Amino acid sequence: MKKLINDADHVVEEMIDGYVKAFPQYVKQLENPRALVRSELDADKVGVLIGGGSGHEPAFMGYVGAGMADGVAVGNIFASPPPGPIVAVTEAIDQGKGVVHVYGNYAGDIMNFGMAAEMADLEHDIEVASVVVTDDVASAPKNEMAKRRGIAGEFFVTKVASVASALGHDLVGVTRLANRANEVTRTMGVGLSPCSLPQTGKPSFTLAEDEMEIGLGHHGEPGIEKGKLETADKVVDRLVTAILEDMPIATGEEVAVLINGLGSTTRMELLIMFRRVEQLLSERGIKIYRSFIGDYSTSLEMGGSSVTLIKLDAELKECIDYPADCPMYVQK
Amino acid sequence: MKKLINDADHVVEEMIDGYVKAFPQYVKQLENPRALVRSELDADKVGVLIGGGSGHEPAFMGYVGAGMADGVAVGNIFASPPPGPIVAVTEAIDQGKGVVHVYGNYAGDIMNFGMAAEMADLEHDIEVASVVVTDDVASAPKNEMAKRRGIAGEFFVTKVASVASALGHDLVGVTRLANRANEVTRTMGVGLSPCSLPQTGKPSFTLAEDEMEIGLGHHGEPGIEKGKLETADKVVDRLVTAILEDMPIATGEEVAVLINGLGSTTRMELLIMFRRVEQLLSERGIKIYRSFIGDYSTSLEMGGSSVTLIKLDAELKECIDYPADCPMYVQK
Repeated sequence: MKKLINDADHVVEEMIDGYVKAFPQYVKQLENPRALVRSELDADKVGVLIGGGSGHEPAFMGYVGAGMADGVAVGNIFASPPPGPIVAVTEAIDQGKGVVHVYGNYAGDIMNFGMAAEMADLEHDIEVASVVVTDDVASAPKNEMAKRRGIAGEFFVTKVASVASALGHDLVGVTRLANRANEVTRTMGVGLSPCSLPQTGKPSFTLAEDEMEIGLGHHGEPGIEKGKLETADKVVDRLVTAILEDMPIATGEEVAVLINGLGSTTRMELLIMFRRVEQLLSERGIKIYRSFIGDYSTSLEMGGSSVTLIKLDAELKECIDYPADCPMYVQK
Repeated sequence: MKKLINDADHVVEEMIDGYVKAFPQYVKQLENPRALVRSELDADKVGVLIGGGSGHEPAFMGYVGAGMADGVAVGNIFASPPPGPIVAVTEAIDQGKGVVHVYGNYAGDIMNFGMAAEMADLEHDIEVASVVVTDDVASAPKNEMAKRRGIAGEFFVTKVASVASALGHDLVGVTRLANRANEVTRTMGVGLSPCSLPQTGKPSFTLAEDEMEIGLGHHGEPGIEKGKLETADKVVDRLVTAILEDMPIATGEEVAVLINGLGSTTRMELLIMFRRVEQLLSERGIKIYRSFIGDYSTSLEMGGSSVTLIKLDAELKECIDYPADCPMYVQK
């Protein structure tokens, strides 16, 4: 697949360079070039660090700013950042109140963030708590929740952690609220067409021109069912049904909805999908409190999308409503 | 190309339905289903109407909200809206101070917006002024500026018109400032891969796997040069050189930059492009006042991107800095 790049070995460095030059009012690069933090930190609060592999932009680097994360550790494409930048960001954003690390449930991230947390503790005496996102319903059965991967729902968990910190919760409080957000967040996705890594140029998976794959992962991990492409309504029916079977939502309860595009799926398709989500929830008397539609966490130029629901209570609603000001996500 | 839709004949209706259901706090649908206006209008100002064909989302409907447009007329995919919804929106947003129509320079839009302006005047006694966007450098030579098409730069012209109206300028003042924005806005794009219309499923143009096309239009209109795909830096050199030859920018002058993705181009590529734009402008002593990077005006799932520069003075800077709150564009 064609890409507007210079050198496949330097795409991440050049992307970061473009990013910090474009948004100096928001973000600065530390000595470790894969470590980015807010240009000006809010004083006296728990630090919130996000991170993971590149290729998911605007996640994760796009979400550093007021009301969102304080810093980000940037990995290679679809690969966890090593401990180095994680520790560097942790140190830079700690204000003596500890730092929460929010990341998706992938083996590499678990290992690297775990090592970084230990190093931050031992070498810098910084208390670190981890919130591991596991929103992808398709990635493991309900009785093995801890095996589930983190995908688009990480946006909500990041937002909740960040707002909890902005509201003055301590490390225990921020972690508790972010974990609770994760517990009530579910995502189901569908893949239509692959992406290709700059270094290989090869598609990450193959699907016939009339096929789709339900539950496909953010890096092309196999889903739960391959089949003929169906109408948007039928696909959404599958996704929402799977979510509601996994996490029942009663009549009268409220949710925020995220329809996420994986890269090359048009806003038109995402809006048509939302239309059906709204019909299904409305039929069940579930109220949509707020909607998010767009490319929030991509897989390079992959085709496909996902539906995320987060079940809200008063505390989580306050978080969802809280303003944000980041290079790639602003909310009033 | 695979699409998550239901019925190719109803994609626009279903998209609008999803849109108004997702963002009721921002936008409502009039009796004419292709006519959308802000849920609550700011009192006592010139109305700003935008519109054009669908398939460019988030343009145009995503830009209705505070600090941006008051209403939008929605056409079929890549086709101008007919006069009906344009007149309906014009009538709904007029507050006795007149309405400015901002749209791209395409034959269908010129005809339909022109007819709608006459009808608004004759049937409803509303004064309408038109601002026709012509930012696409590649679409006609410099001595035939009036033949140029409007592409991504329409975002800046819309923003300037909307802010001028919000600041209390009268119809003449809004029109003057928006036209001035158009006069100092230039865009150059590159196409890499086609999109397909839902109704035909056929690609809008063809390019070999190693080819690019400089100056390709937003609906697949032929560009000025086809050739082998080059590095991002070389492509950006071509785009920026063409812009600066067309509109010289002196050392010390300031610009806002928009790197726009056409649909399936990753944020990573857009950021790598920005990196080179910044280098080139910095070498010339041109200051970047503010940067916008993302999918601002797409062509369904087309691959490619564009660089837009708007040359700023104090008045235009005030407009660029003005906050906005729309479903698909928020600025603090």
